[in-house]
Amino acid sequence: MTIILDAMGGDHAPEAVVAGCKAALEQLDVDLILVGREKQIRREMEICGLNSSRVRIVHAEEVVLGEDDPVDAIRRKKDSSMRIALSMLKNGDGDVVVSGGNTGALISGITLLVKRMKGVRRVALAPILPTVKGGVLLLDAGANVECTPAFLRQFAVMGSIYMETVMGISKPCVRLLNIGTEEEKGTPLIIKTHRLLKELPINYGNYIEARDIPLAGADVVVCDGFTGNVVLKSIEGMGSAINMMIKGLFLKNAVTKLAAGLVHGGLKTLKKSMDYTEYGGAPILGAAKPVIKAHGSSDGNAFFHAIRQAELVVRNRMTEIMAEKIKQYDTDESLMEKEEVLCTQK
Amino acid sequence: MTIILDAMGGDHAPEAVVAGCKAALEQLDVDLILVGREKQIRREMEICGLNSSRVRIVHAEEVVLGEDDPVDAIRRKKDSSMRIALSMLKNGDGDVVVSGGNTGALISGITLLVKRMKGVRRVALAPILPTVKGGVLLLDAGANVECTPAFLRQFAVMGSIYMETVMGISKPCVRLLNIGTEEEKGTPLIIKTHRLLKELPINYGNYIEARDIPLAGADVVVCDGFTGNVVLKSIEGMGSAINMMIKGLFLKNAVTKLAAGLVHGGLKTLKKSMDYTEYGGAPILGAAKPVIKAHGSSDGNAFFHAIRQAELVVRNRMTEIMAEKIKQYDTDESLMEKEEVLCTQK
Repeated sequence: MTIILDAMGGDHAPEAVVAGCKAALEQLDVDLILVGREKQIRREMEICGLNSSRVRIVHAEEVVLGEDDPVDAIRRKKDSSMRIALSMLKNGDGDVVVSGGNTGALISGITLLVKRMKGVRRVALAPILPTVKGGVLLLDAGANVECTPAFLRQFAVMGSIYMETVMGISKPCVRLLNIGTEEEKGTPLIIKTHRLLKELPINYGNYIEARDIPLAGADVVVCDGFTGNVVLKSIEGMGSAINMMIKGLFLKNAVTKLAAGLVHGGLKTLKKSMDYTEYGGAPILGAAKPVIKAHGSSDGNAFFHAIRQAELVVRNRMTEIMAEKIKQYDTDESLMEKEEVLCTQK
Repeated sequence: MTIILDAMGGDHAPEAVVAGCKAALEQLDVDLILVGREKQIRREMEICGLNSSRVRIVHAEEVVLGEDDPVDAIRRKKDSSMRIALSMLKNGDGDVVVSGGNTGALISGITLLVKRMKGVRRVALAPILPTVKGGVLLLDAGANVECTPAFLRQFAVMGSIYMETVMGISKPCVRLLNIGTEEEKGTPLIIKTHRLLKELPINYGNYIEARDIPLAGADVVVCDGFTGNVVLKSIEGMGSAINMMIKGLFLKNAVTKLAAGLVHGGLKTLKKSMDYTEYGGAPILGAAKPVIKAHGSSDGNAFFHAIRQAELVVRNRMTEIMAEKIKQYDTDESLMEKEEVLCTQK
């Protein structure tokens, strides 16, 4: 198995990417291709002592930056690490791409180069959020600002398949994000989607309110990209705020520092369990070949987990199984088309 | 000043309402009217030793329940504590209503009985969320599932006035919730609203991402009711999850319990500062007379803060000042109408 890394994508690239690769090579049976500025990559490899025949470097001069226009950048910067990584994936030079770069550009690149699985209407960005009891897959978390019921229906199917094939969850509970539990609550989009999801051969658990997401109320949560992105960022922001305040609490004086020492192990465990990077990156579901979006701020540990996740995805044949099942579930195309005309979200 | 309490509204009513009233009478120069089942209220007053000439009870036999249909309940249950409280407010028997009951019914009741301020298109539920540095007003947090740019524009005005007149913040920073900071990011609703907000004589700070809300990125955050409700509940859920985990962490064994003791004061402060009930309830802005929605799970302390907030709102003449300014800001009605036709949210 060969994993292609966009070595220049992310705030701490290529250093963090290389660190993640080193850890991955120690623990996983994979070959790695690092795409990016060769000189920089080699320097980082030297610094952390990474020297293996299982690592290959492919030089790319340009970098897609965080502030670049997503569509424009991936088209113009033909020699960027992100674009070359995706092209290599498309050409079969590797089995999966991991990138911590500009999310919009990565998604544009998938649409342009890797393409969608046959029958998939829209790819979805599907991060895994930590909860009190494991992780929950949330999609779409920002690939599609406006959605139709048909898109959301497909997200439900793809999310369920991911949690089953990759996370080994039997009959993953899929729920639709809403602002109440009553049948008639929510937007027209939600009400129409709800009707569609009830018909699917998945374990559909009806509506879920955002409050219950961190409390492990579902295995998969479906919503439009705008709402998903807001949920993701609300939870991230709250996590940061509380983290800041707990630090402040413990570093206040000698007594509190002593207390911190006493609960140090527990605090580490707490921090770890609420740390989304322990769950890997966000798979971009519906792409014809697997792509994992690592968080932009990923450190070496986060990149390691993203690579570990990529290995799981490939080893469990998630993309092949999903391509097969998408064909099964998407009957009655004409019904879908009518729904699309009727219900443009927002 | 007279504050009207819906004594039966909330999970722990009337006990928690009465407890909140007791504390309020000790600290504030107010008269209180408790509307609800007289026998129950008197029993609670006896239990907590509340006996004051500044408290009056108005009997109401029925109660609007959490699971009742909002519009239906307020219309049918004419002898409910919530409806009678709102009618008394309408008739001038009191200056403000505080209720922890069914939010939808409260809002329907306002539309039906108290009515909107002249010129206000839609009332907004405006809870105050805790941040690392004080509170942030979020609106709309659920009164209006679908919004037009004109509604959001008015929410920006009302939110700014509330923070200025009641919280004493000079030139409150008002920002529009979005999933990015670039001009062209977001839904059509957001892009159109952004243009309107730039023209207002308020301190408009452009877009804010949800991540920055708990980090005190603004004084007022504007969004549609669906999104606002999702933000509110995401943050609540995350707060609960972390609370659970911190408890679990500290109660694990003797060592951790010792640690808990050492940081006890700090933990209490932390919990307090992230506890939204310390900030009071959610004012329903745009109502012709002031109404505060206390959280349904409010205990005595939360009701005390909601009453304290109600006193601030009346003493600072928030409603009168808002009615005046709404008239000033809402010029060019024809432009607003065109916008409404073009942009139905969701």
